[in-house]
Amino acid sequence: MHQSDRTYNQIAGQKVQRIEAISDGVFAIALTLLVLDIRVPVLESIKTEGDLMHAFRGLTPRLLSYFASFMTLGIFWTGHALQYSYIEKSDRNLNWFNLFFLMFVSVLPFTTAFLSEYIEFKFAIFLYWLNIFSLGLVLYVHWIYATKHNFLSIQGDEEAVVTGAITRRIVIAQTLYAIGALLCFINNYLSILFIIIIQLNYALAIFGGKMNLKKSSLKT
Amino acid sequence: MHQSDRTYNQIAGQKVQRIEAISDGVFAIALTLLVLDIRVPVLESIKTEGDLMHAFRGLTPRLLSYFASFMTLGIFWTGHALQYSYIEKSDRNLNWFNLFFLMFVSVLPFTTAFLSEYIEFKFAIFLYWLNIFSLGLVLYVHWIYATKHNFLSIQGDEEAVVTGAITRRIVIAQTLYAIGALLCFINNYLSILFIIIIQLNYALAIFGGKMNLKKSSLKT
Amino acid sequence: MHQSDRTYNQIAGQKVQRIEAISDGVFAIALTLLVLDIRVPVLESIKTEGDLMHAFRGLTPRLLSYFASFMTLGIFWTGHALQYSYIEKSDRNLNWFNLFFLMFVSVLPFTTAFLSEYIEFKFAIFLYWLNIFSLGLVLYVHWIYATKHNFLSIQGDEEAVVTGAITRRIVIAQTLYAIGALLCFINNYLSILFIIIIQLNYALAIFGGKMNLKKSSLKT
Amino acid sequence: MHQSDRTYNQIAGQKVQRIEAISDGVFAIALTLLVLDIRVPVLESIKTEGDLMHAFRGLTPRLLSYFASFMTLGIFWTGHALQYSYIEKSDRNLNWFNLFFLMFVSVLPFTTAFLSEYIEFKFAIFLYWLNIFSLGLVLYVHWIYATKHNFLSIQGDEEAVVTGAITRRIVIAQTLYAIGALLCFINNYLSILFIIIIQLNYALAIFGGKMNLKKSSLKT
Repeated sequence: MHQSDRTYNQIAGQKVQRIEAISDGVFAIALTLLVLDIRVPVLESIKTEGDLMHAFRGLTPRLLSYFASFMTLGIFWTGHALQYSYIEKSDRNLNWFNLFFLMFVSVLPFTTAFLSEYIEFKFAIFLYWLNIFSLGLVLYVHWIYATKHNFLSIQGDEEAVVTGAITRRIVIAQTLYAIGALLCFINNYLSILFIIIIQLNYALAIFGGKMNLKKSSLKT
Repeated sequence: MHQSDRTYNQIAGQKVQRIEAISDGVFAIALTLLVLDIRVPVLESIKTEGDLMHAFRGLTPRLLSYFASFMTLGIFWTGHALQYSYIEKSDRNLNWFNLFFLMFVSVLPFTTAFLSEYIEFKFAIFLYWLNIFSLGLVLYVHWIYATKHNFLSIQGDEEAVVTGAITRRIVIAQTLYAIGALLCFINNYLSILFIIIIQLNYALAIFGGKMNLKKSSLKT
Repeated sequence: MHQSDRTYNQIAGQKVQRIEAISDGVFAIALTLLVLDIRVPVLESIKTEGDLMHAFRGLTPRLLSYFASFMTLGIFWTGHALQYSYIEKSDRNLNWFNLFFLMFVSVLPFTTAFLSEYIEFKFAIFLYWLNIFSLGLVLYVHWIYATKHNFLSIQGDEEAVVTGAITRRIVIAQTLYAIGALLCFINNYLSILFIIIIQLNYALAIFGGKMNLKKSSLKT
Repeated sequence: MHQSDRTYNQIAGQKVQRIEAISDGVFAIALTLLVLDIRVPVLESIKTEGDLMHAFRGLTPRLLSYFASFMTLGIFWTGHALQYSYIEKSDRNLNWFNLFFLMFVSVLPFTTAFLSEYIEFKFAIFLYWLNIFSLGLVLYVHWIYATKHNFLSIQGDEEAVVTGAITRRIVIAQTLYAIGALLCFINNYLSILFIIIIQLNYALAIFGGKMNLKKSSLKT
């Protein structure tokens, strides 16, 4: 190919460090913006310590959804960092998969606020689940694209192992999230509790996540 | 030149890494602040799932302008990252071109909020277009300045090719944005839709943006 | 161990640079969000310079808690940066200890706003102290975990010295913070003042913190 | 000195990269938060394009103070980046000088909002000036401390030249800012205009700032 044939798209988006930097930035802000949703109750009626504790307990829905969203972002950030520990090149398409992924990251504070405001509505659970689903989907496509275009620092067997682990993880996690979301047809708090338990499992690796386990493909 | 003749301006702004870091920071925050504009509707009248979905549909103008602005920032961030994949030195003037560019980045959440609040006013479209135009203009001047002062890691033919691609891209994109803005004299939603289609084209490279194309100077 | 036995948890969270990047991001935002709590008084009744100065003096509780929280974040950021100047590897567990640490960082603007709104309530002091205590606890566990799993760049005697210094620092600081919190049973402003004095001591190293001191284990 | 004598203060704050990262983060956020102060006017009475343009013109005080503050942050960020292009080591004291500098950075959106709300009050100008003065003072002390403790990558003559340039710059700029602030005794808008002109001069290097000038110590 002649140099003079190169187009903007062929030269755009090849610097992995910048992609990592903007991603860490967006995650850091989304993680911190979530807290803006927990507004300090300002009530004239608060006169005693008891009143204040009562008002604080009234923040429970917001604290729950804050916690769930912090965990969600933590899980997806870990997944993103994992992918880029292997991705060493990029092109404009991978760049845009990443930007769309970040779009769903930056939208999470909104769907979280929506959920905590309307925690008893199925539609709020649906929107929240849709956000998590989109994050998983785009992150998966992102990895497959990077694999197909040889942007990784690993190859052959090693690549297959990592792709296998990532695929299992995303499929199992998304199945569990979908089940969690569907639980809203029984009860919304049950639904959110289930989602938090999934997340705690992934964060704390309660079931089978220990580093020295040899056969734990289920709860990877 | 004697050392003792050196002035503050001659020693300022030579570290490209810092320039990239502050730029990624500003972009990351602007990308995330945009979502603050999509406020959760808080209405006493929301009693059923249907009410909530109806209220959510009422957010359409804000969701549209959020999406358009996220794309805008993504496109300009990609352009900025592209330039700095070639720029390896800087001086205080280039530093300030970059800071003015960041000023127009940080202002975009405002012009976006202005647009989503007054989506049926031509003046809101004008302000929004002016913001995009300023971003393109400053980014272009930024590149030309870097070229003229030999701050690039490439030279000669290669530099000419990259400059050509960047110039074509900015000129064509800005022409399309101007057409999009002028469409507001027919209808504002048409205008915004046209801008979003331009952006989707740049993001998804629908027309001719594929890496293996040899002759696609139009839609680079 | 066979490659095919590796699980997601075994490959996740090994890149220290990303952990440092997201942490700096969260700290930077938390530090800056704090200021959003100091709202500009908007009063119709402000007519003279005297009125404005009076209104500004009314911000004292918010300025005090802003200052205390900025110092807190500064102290914990310094502690975090110190740890990562020795930590050169990570695993998914350390990654999650860090994320939980960041959760308590991102929550501080909320507990600070809560404190400045209810500065005369013991429960507000308690919440604020709980936040500082959690920061100290998680950061300590984080270090011990990294030590036990040989993630450090130092070993043997040197490791023991650094662990000793970090342990003493956290234990003494947390003891002082607890005393400060308990002072609220006398007076809340006394409590906050005591906490600010502890922080100033750590920041300014007033007592025995000078670099050339040889024996100052108390005020390290 | 024995290892066992080392205290927390002797091991804290030596990683310059982390200091640069948190600083870029705080600057990026402060630069972007400024725009939150320019709130979109939401008025029922806006019916025509003319009404909207009129409402937009009403934002002039906020746009002016936004612009002034963006320039201020840009100037101080450039100064900060300049210092760290020479500083290659740090200790806990330098770390804390930097954190206090960042405190005044993160407070600027507040003093700016205060100014734009009370643009006709001398006290608002005074607070704003005090913020700029503190930024200059701490940044200067920061440099002198780094110089005295041999944390720089340059020495001898070269160090003297850079210190001279930095000193002249800060002294002249601060003198001009003080004059600007004092102009409020004539008229507040004159005061702000003068400050913006100073900033534009530093940003655009209108008077004598060109790179090839040999003798321009006044307007460095």
